Amino acid sequence: MNAPHRRRGSRGTPRVRRDLPTRIDATGTRRETDALGTVEVPADRYWGAQTQRALVHFAIGDDRMPKAVYHAYGYVKKAAALVNGREGRLAGWQADLIAHVADEVVSGALDDHFPLYVWQAGSGTQTNMNVNEVISNRAIQLVGGVVGSKEPVHPNDHVNLGQSSNDTFPTAMHIAAVRVLHDPLLPQVSLLQEAIAAKSRTWYDIVKTGRTHLRDAVPLSVGQEWSGYAAQLSDALERLRATLPDLYQLAIGGTAVGTGLGAPEGFGPAVAREIAAATGHPFKVASNPFAAQSGVDAVVAASAGLRGLAIPLMKIADDIRWLASGPHGGIGELTLPANEPGSSSMPGKVNPTQCEAMMMVCTQVLSDDAAVAHAGTRGNFQLNAARPLAISDFLHSARILADACEKLRAYCVEGIELNRERIDEHLARSLMLVTALSPRIGHDKAAEIARKAAAEGTTLREAAIASGHIGAEDFDRIVDPRKMARLRDG
Amino acid sequence: MNAPHRRRGSRGTPRVRRDLPTRIDATGTRRETDALGTVEVPADRYWGAQTQRALVHFAIGDDRMPKAVYHAYGYVKKAAALVNGREGRLAGWQADLIAHVADEVVSGALDDHFPLYVWQAGSGTQTNMNVNEVISNRAIQLVGGVVGSKEPVHPNDHVNLGQSSNDTFPTAMHIAAVRVLHDPLLPQVSLLQEAIAAKSRTWYDIVKTGRTHLRDAVPLSVGQEWSGYAAQLSDALERLRATLPDLYQLAIGGTAVGTGLGAPEGFGPAVAREIAAATGHPFKVASNPFAAQSGVDAVVAASAGLRGLAIPLMKIADDIRWLASGPHGGIGELTLPANEPGSSSMPGKVNPTQCEAMMMVCTQVLSDDAAVAHAGTRGNFQLNAARPLAISDFLHSARILADACEKLRAYCVEGIELNRERIDEHLARSLMLVTALSPRIGHDKAAEIARKAAAEGTTLREAAIASGHIGAEDFDRIVDPRKMARLRDG
Amino acid sequence: MNAPHRRRGSRGTPRVRRDLPTRIDATGTRRETDALGTVEVPADRYWGAQTQRALVHFAIGDDRMPKAVYHAYGYVKKAAALVNGREGRLAGWQADLIAHVADEVVSGALDDHFPLYVWQAGSGTQTNMNVNEVISNRAIQLVGGVVGSKEPVHPNDHVNLGQSSNDTFPTAMHIAAVRVLHDPLLPQVSLLQEAIAAKSRTWYDIVKTGRTHLRDAVPLSVGQEWSGYAAQLSDALERLRATLPDLYQLAIGGTAVGTGLGAPEGFGPAVAREIAAATGHPFKVASNPFAAQSGVDAVVAASAGLRGLAIPLMKIADDIRWLASGPHGGIGELTLPANEPGSSSMPGKVNPTQCEAMMMVCTQVLSDDAAVAHAGTRGNFQLNAARPLAISDFLHSARILADACEKLRAYCVEGIELNRERIDEHLARSLMLVTALSPRIGHDKAAEIARKAAAEGTTLREAAIASGHIGAEDFDRIVDPRKMARLRDG
Amino acid sequence: MNAPHRRRGSRGTPRVRRDLPTRIDATGTRRETDALGTVEVPADRYWGAQTQRALVHFAIGDDRMPKAVYHAYGYVKKAAALVNGREGRLAGWQADLIAHVADEVVSGALDDHFPLYVWQAGSGTQTNMNVNEVISNRAIQLVGGVVGSKEPVHPNDHVNLGQSSNDTFPTAMHIAAVRVLHDPLLPQVSLLQEAIAAKSRTWYDIVKTGRTHLRDAVPLSVGQEWSGYAAQLSDALERLRATLPDLYQLAIGGTAVGTGLGAPEGFGPAVAREIAAATGHPFKVASNPFAAQSGVDAVVAASAGLRGLAIPLMKIADDIRWLASGPHGGIGELTLPANEPGSSSMPGKVNPTQCEAMMMVCTQVLSDDAAVAHAGTRGNFQLNAARPLAISDFLHSARILADACEKLRAYCVEGIELNRERIDEHLARSLMLVTALSPRIGHDKAAEIARKAAAEGTTLREAAIASGHIGAEDFDRIVDPRKMARLRDG
Repeated sequence: MNAPHRRRGSRGTPRVRRDLPTRIDATGTRRETDALGTVEVPADRYWGAQTQRALVHFAIGDDRMPKAVYHAYGYVKKAAALVNGREGRLAGWQADLIAHVADEVVSGALDDHFPLYVWQAGSGTQTNMNVNEVISNRAIQLVGGVVGSKEPVHPNDHVNLGQSSNDTFPTAMHIAAVRVLHDPLLPQVSLLQEAIAAKSRTWYDIVKTGRTHLRDAVPLSVGQEWSGYAAQLSDALERLRATLPDLYQLAIGGTAVGTGLGAPEGFGPAVAREIAAATGHPFKVASNPFAAQSGVDAVVAASAGLRGLAIPLMKIADDIRWLASGPHGGIGELTLPANEPGSSSMPGKVNPTQCEAMMMVCTQVLSDDAAVAHAGTRGNFQLNAARPLAISDFLHSARILADACEKLRAYCVEGIELNRERIDEHLARSLMLVTALSPRIGHDKAAEIARKAAAEGTTLREAAIASGHIGAEDFDRIVDPRKMARLRDG
Repeated sequence: MNAPHRRRGSRGTPRVRRDLPTRIDATGTRRETDALGTVEVPADRYWGAQTQRALVHFAIGDDRMPKAVYHAYGYVKKAAALVNGREGRLAGWQADLIAHVADEVVSGALDDHFPLYVWQAGSGTQTNMNVNEVISNRAIQLVGGVVGSKEPVHPNDHVNLGQSSNDTFPTAMHIAAVRVLHDPLLPQVSLLQEAIAAKSRTWYDIVKTGRTHLRDAVPLSVGQEWSGYAAQLSDALERLRATLPDLYQLAIGGTAVGTGLGAPEGFGPAVAREIAAATGHPFKVASNPFAAQSGVDAVVAASAGLRGLAIPLMKIADDIRWLASGPHGGIGELTLPANEPGSSSMPGKVNPTQCEAMMMVCTQVLSDDAAVAHAGTRGNFQLNAARPLAISDFLHSARILADACEKLRAYCVEGIELNRERIDEHLARSLMLVTALSPRIGHDKAAEIARKAAAEGTTLREAAIASGHIGAEDFDRIVDPRKMARLRDG
Repeated sequence: MNAPHRRRGSRGTPRVRRDLPTRIDATGTRRETDALGTVEVPADRYWGAQTQRALVHFAIGDDRMPKAVYHAYGYVKKAAALVNGREGRLAGWQADLIAHVADEVVSGALDDHFPLYVWQAGSGTQTNMNVNEVISNRAIQLVGGVVGSKEPVHPNDHVNLGQSSNDTFPTAMHIAAVRVLHDPLLPQVSLLQEAIAAKSRTWYDIVKTGRTHLRDAVPLSVGQEWSGYAAQLSDALERLRATLPDLYQLAIGGTAVGTGLGAPEGFGPAVAREIAAATGHPFKVASNPFAAQSGVDAVVAASAGLRGLAIPLMKIADDIRWLASGPHGGIGELTLPANEPGSSSMPGKVNPTQCEAMMMVCTQVLSDDAAVAHAGTRGNFQLNAARPLAISDFLHSARILADACEKLRAYCVEGIELNRERIDEHLARSLMLVTALSPRIGHDKAAEIARKAAAEGTTLREAAIASGHIGAEDFDRIVDPRKMARLRDG
Repeated sequence: MNAPHRRRGSRGTPRVRRDLPTRIDATGTRRETDALGTVEVPADRYWGAQTQRALVHFAIGDDRMPKAVYHAYGYVKKAAALVNGREGRLAGWQADLIAHVADEVVSGALDDHFPLYVWQAGSGTQTNMNVNEVISNRAIQLVGGVVGSKEPVHPNDHVNLGQSSNDTFPTAMHIAAVRVLHDPLLPQVSLLQEAIAAKSRTWYDIVKTGRTHLRDAVPLSVGQEWSGYAAQLSDALERLRATLPDLYQLAIGGTAVGTGLGAPEGFGPAVAREIAAATGHPFKVASNPFAAQSGVDAVVAASAGLRGLAIPLMKIADDIRWLASGPHGGIGELTLPANEPGSSSMPGKVNPTQCEAMMMVCTQVLSDDAAVAHAGTRGNFQLNAARPLAISDFLHSARILADACEKLRAYCVEGIELNRERIDEHLARSLMLVTALSPRIGHDKAAEIARKAAAEGTTLREAAIASGHIGAEDFDRIVDPRKMARLRDG
């Protein structure tokens, strides 16, 4: 939240060469400075001293801060520059220049200059400074300045003007989260949901044995079964969408601790409006900045929304693989597409691999979600200090869920076929059709018939008639699977 | 979903002795029967053979099915009886009798007759049968019949008429969940939220040092800090309330697999209407019964709502205990009420015990929530088979959260006092006040001043003036904590 | 860690009436005092002021501190008293008296006087004081003193002498954990393991189709399959047993912060020796008291051992319910005992309820374990402040696992029978027998035969011979399930 | 588990050009085939049809199967080839050739040819086939054959000879797990442990105030405090090392379902011996192959070992950041190295960023561990179907823990300095020194003195003497922090 302590560009607006390719043609290293001193950075990188230090100090694993966070930061920096320019806190050309480079950030053109790891300060400070440094140096390059000189666009005093990591990082988190939900997550889950709903319609009146406790139960139709899958996903989608409004609330304007010190009056709302305009999503400033900066509650809630999808997806994938099990020693009612040879050793084997991949993805989503939740508990005073973890795991879950839905749809669900022979055989042999007799002869007598048929290996019909509790004609009229499934005629 | 295969009570309505105390005056055992044969049950208990078997087969730990589930079942059985009576499937007196006993169930008067464990069939079948058996025998007692005879009120054919465990148990789950949310959870959290908001108002203009990364940061007021707590709780409450509409959707009417076999047309909606009328909550029938019976998604979502409360509560409790730490070797800005001697060995110690209890409760809520989520993945085909686990953990979380909020409010928050001396001292010594100079002299020079003051042990003011970057008058005008906190005057 | 500042009982040893029943015959309330003042407690309870305060301040849910913790505390108090007596810090009669009452604590005779909740100070201070107060008052009663007078046995100065909650509570945790592992957990799991191993031997040479990815695979015997279950449990038992040595290390002697202030030299080891002698387990003092008091790492490790059992148990229970699925529309290779009617609505249904109960128990154990692990992270400086949570969840898991193993064994595993007809049918129809041909004709040709048989609905034998790759005689010799399963001959 | 159905190499041993660079100089695509048909693959890649299919069907997120798994697979393929060659199942030159290429796999030279995602078949089949295909084509290249022709080294019939994904993938998992534990995990944690132990020795006799419940407690020395950290890590390291023996047990030899069909007698033990020789770790064949293939229990147990490290690391990092908090408004007893500017907005701020990174890493490790545990529950019959998830999360945890330990050591722990002034001030002002008086004057009087000093703002000494319970000389002798900490003299 730093300001231009001297007016730059008073000698006039520098010429901006917007068409310069996004690269620095140099080799070796150059010197960059920050408050702690001087650092050598690769000469062909836009980043500065703080990014370079962070590359050394936080080289932990291979987990990189998701590019989606950097792209989101592009929106923040552009919006802040435009507002600062409008209010005269930046020269017009400075604001435009920063905005232009920020557009490059959003576009991904500068992705190679955002190398940092997830594991860094809990505030995401290193990532914010990475963005500030890259925009500064790229802007300097575009006006023909000396890269690394911080003149005439300073990473803190200009790019970060009126901002802090503590308000911009949560802002970027929300933007990134909203964008991944809008694309690809919600569309991909919706496509899967529609593919399932289509199957449900196609198979509306194929009656099959129901199963509870894995045991044969009263009948329903395949379409009814799949309508349940579709409904679970619709409901989960709706719940996930309901988490968006909280994500639309941005911490921007609170600066270091929520009070907005260093940002002018109205800065936050103005920046939020710019972000809304640029992204097309109804972002606005958070109602309480202290809450927005000391928690990650909206992301936790959205993560619960992802989990809410993973749970029925796990169930659906599990059902499908079981319904396709066998083919002989299992249920075998579904035939899955053969996408690949199933086994390195057993010839001709076809496995429910898309279902297994989905189930692993869902297991991962549940544990990512637990990480996000526990990250939510790690706030102290004016700052939540587990932000990079929270957004990284959230974006990870959203991405693998979206992709897994696409693959399950394209390579499994759409190609599933019914094995009518097995379905009919299972239905015909189910002793649970006896339930239809209960309203007529009572629970206890019906149970007696089922036990008798099981014990003697007769059909239910034989056992029922032999019991004397019901006649053949009544039996045939009552024990009608289609009626039992309550299918509407026609 | 069983029906009266012969008209009972055709010889006339039996006399019902509604005022009989809810106990059986008998000793020893009596014989009860079910489809598997005969079982001895304690003569003074209303339960029957299936409950007795379950007491033996599922005696696992001390976890009992929460009474709230049984009370919720009371609403289900009453509503079903009334609808069955209205439609002539039960005799009027039967319907009234079952409804009367169901009222006793709701009231808790029969609690001693619901002894079962959480760990049972994943469908909750044993609990449903426990309710059916108790209502049957209590009804039989009220009409002077032979307890255990199943005449003239049969547990399956009458009490369970038009129902299955597979639709009634999820129905009871939703009713129990809604009720615990409405009381005590939402009110208790609201009271705590209000107590915190009141503190925020009281302390609105007490300026203190902010803290980020546990390090001294720019100032804010105590009231601002606490407004953040209040806002986090308000938001979490709103998110939790938003999970209620899905809980209002009941599986009733789907019977064994969702098709409604054994229940008449319109049964589910009618029963849901009765339940709504009796409970005062807008229950209705679920839009897709197959989804409602094969998942516990609405409970998972509500559990995420509980978790959403636990997370800010953990943060708030953690902040409070740290702000009260010391008194000398810690922060010491808050003074907590001394509810008990703090130590068995260190005389005069006062500990933040309410905060610790709350933090443990929140940790438990997060793990209960994980159990609920994983229970959600354990559905197969037409049934989720981890229902008792899901509802038991959900109710547990709701209850301990509610109670912990009450205790934290009454025995901690309401009695907290500020240690103004420490607050002022910390503020006065914070080098981060230098941030106010950034907009004037730039980030780098301001940092230089802070470092100089730290290294030389001088005040910020001395270091600033000595630096030559700012005069004394300007310093005093700009470095004003109250202004920095952006407090509105008056 | 308080000492007798004046010699009590100098006028001689009081008469101890050891045979007095463990109850106080009084009604109403009596006054008890502590450092904060005076409190009314129920006159028929042995507890004092601090327990009474805690009953009010921590009335959170229904979760009570497990009695096993109190019993463990009995060992601690007795051992400390004996050592204090031997060293002259307590009068001999005081030591004997405390030891006697501590025996009553161990026996459970005073259980009704330990009413506190799990949720209390993170150190377990309230539970320690509950024990101190009850022992004090019971001892006073036995010598005919005035209950509540703290004379001649003071809760802090005598019962807690040389101790603190901070070393005794972790000590009691370890004792309680060790005891529940030794009984009932390890024996019950072992019995289940043996029952499974017995099944494995019985069914050693029954060949069946193997299943990978739920798909028919090459054969193995039922006995081989079950030997895998038995081996997973043996291994898990061994891993759990390997966590015992760390639990044998006790924090006793560290007093408030680990330095042992207030305890004489050698106190910890001496008390640990007494506890070892009394319990029969090789307890000793922890090598680093600071680690022992600021973490709960040994309990976390033992909890991972419980989880290590739950995971194969979940798999085994899941396999069993699937192998018993159907009977017609599933795998149906196992027949489970019918312990109870399976359904309230579907007559004659038998469900794998023991498997479902076990699977829910295992899900709970996994989430309890997560709670214990997160509790482990909640230490600060010289104290872990989530101890009651950690031990409560640990003991809970151990108990429900033990009981669930007993029930699964007695009511499921021991009664399981094979459905030989289904097993043989599945084996005969499995196309994966083709794998036996691979070493002879190569993977690709074998796959071609399997696909051909599947597509044309012929047997594998027919397709193989028709392919020209193998003759009938060779086919019959090579495709021999028993050989394929590598069963040793008789 | 496929065998050479015709004798290859009968025309003589082909010339092997071992020095060919590990690349294919080709552009465009080439045709590869598998049982399902023909696929175009990039001409410069060694992989074949099944890998290419998997790249399309499982393009889920950016999570790639860790290279460590492929390297481990190199050991498996080499060992199997050597054993097959020795037993005449492969021609000698074939065995040597496969072994040579497998060495290239181990070395990482072929890493670019292992592109697959984590999310695939739950058995890891795609990864096994990727290895088989790459080795086959690379071997073909080395003998001047036609890449893609499968001649004279077939991916299934030769490279996979005597193997299945179902035994090789778990084998590779164990090898990869053992290797990451041996390097870098155990050494890096040990170095951190030693750095902490060194600090403990350096600061052995600096007495400070202890803290329990965040409240001032009786004194201990800084060295004692840090000895606790060191001990927690030593213990956790020992527990982790104890999980190695189970990881040394390999599933190899069980082939598809554990029976070893397709592998010759003694194949598993022989391959395990080769792997042991090549890696230097005491691998051997698992005692029960059915258990080894249907569970991932040893990996779950090792993951609990990682968690066991994360928990004390979280506590230690948390303690350090708190002890360094302030500098003025916190505890401020430690001074951390300033590795980077702490804030983008607050000049001169230094934050405990290494601690925060470590705490996030530990949170992630706990959730990865939960994923591994739940993966462990997802086995059915002869196969665990969540293997790729389990090993990916395990290796991830091990890697980030190792790196975070290195960074915490190098950039935080080693550079920590004590702020003696604050330490002394906190100690001097602690009222808990009163505890030393308890053994002399009793708990209650000591508490009275502490309360009096707190209330009146006097020193403890003044309040004690004023109380009349103790004289000045005795006070000075007894209330000696160094004695209270029980530091050995000299």
